[in-house]
Amino acid sequence: MKFKQSIVVRTDLKMGRGKIAAQVAHASCEAVFIALERAIWREWVHKWRMEGQKKVVLKASSESELLELYSKALKKGLPCSLIRDAGLTQLPPNTLTAIAIGPAPEEMVNELTSHLKLL
Amino acid sequence: MKFKQSIVVRTDLKMGRGKIAAQVAHASCEAVFIALERAIWREWVHKWRMEGQKKVVLKASSESELLELYSKALKKGLPCSLIRDAGLTQLPPNTLTAIAIGPAPEEMVNELTSHLKLL
Repeated sequence: MKFKQSIVVRTDLKMGRGKIAAQVAHASCEAVFIALERAIWREWVHKWRMEGQKKVVLKASSESELLELYSKALKKGLPCSLIRDAGLTQLPPNTLTAIAIGPAPEEMVNELTSHLKLL
Repeated sequence: MKFKQSIVVRTDLKMGRGKIAAQVAHASCEAVFIALERAIWREWVHKWRMEGQKKVVLKASSESELLELYSKALKKGLPCSLIRDAGLTQLPPNTLTAIAIGPAPEEMVNELTSHLKLL
């Protein structure tokens, strides 16, 4: 089986490329931490790592779009993270910037994110 | 104690922002996986997560600069990752794109990376 993580970041916030990269890394790591906490997900994490940690970075254009995706991922039983920025630089405090879905079986992630464009 | 992870990415490769974000996330996650494999580092990972996973994304301008930093981080006994791109898109196969140093105590990471500029 192939495993994958999709990371979705907001482009409407006009973050610089360094800020975007940091938010994407936060979302990616946090979803891994969450996945390591449950036995079935932990196995997905290890297999995903062995396969080379496939990651895809996608874009969304609003907070509501991220929240809807996050909620669908939770309902599907996939590990997912939701990142809010502390707001020390560039953004107002508590701004939702990115989510990550997976690591999980590729087709389960694709069902939720295949309509999104690559960043 | 404060913990931190510095991620250093090459800017001379002219990667797009999505590609940069993916390489930074690879480096960040892989350094976490490496850190989880040793007891002392594992404790650093957990404390770093509790503190909010401070990440800084920095830039370097060559492969040799990344390799030198990576070698210094290894000598200092810090968890670190080195990411080579499979080269399926944008880059020649096996191109060194990014490294991550830490999670580790902030001052140990700063000794190696405080001269670098934010991406």
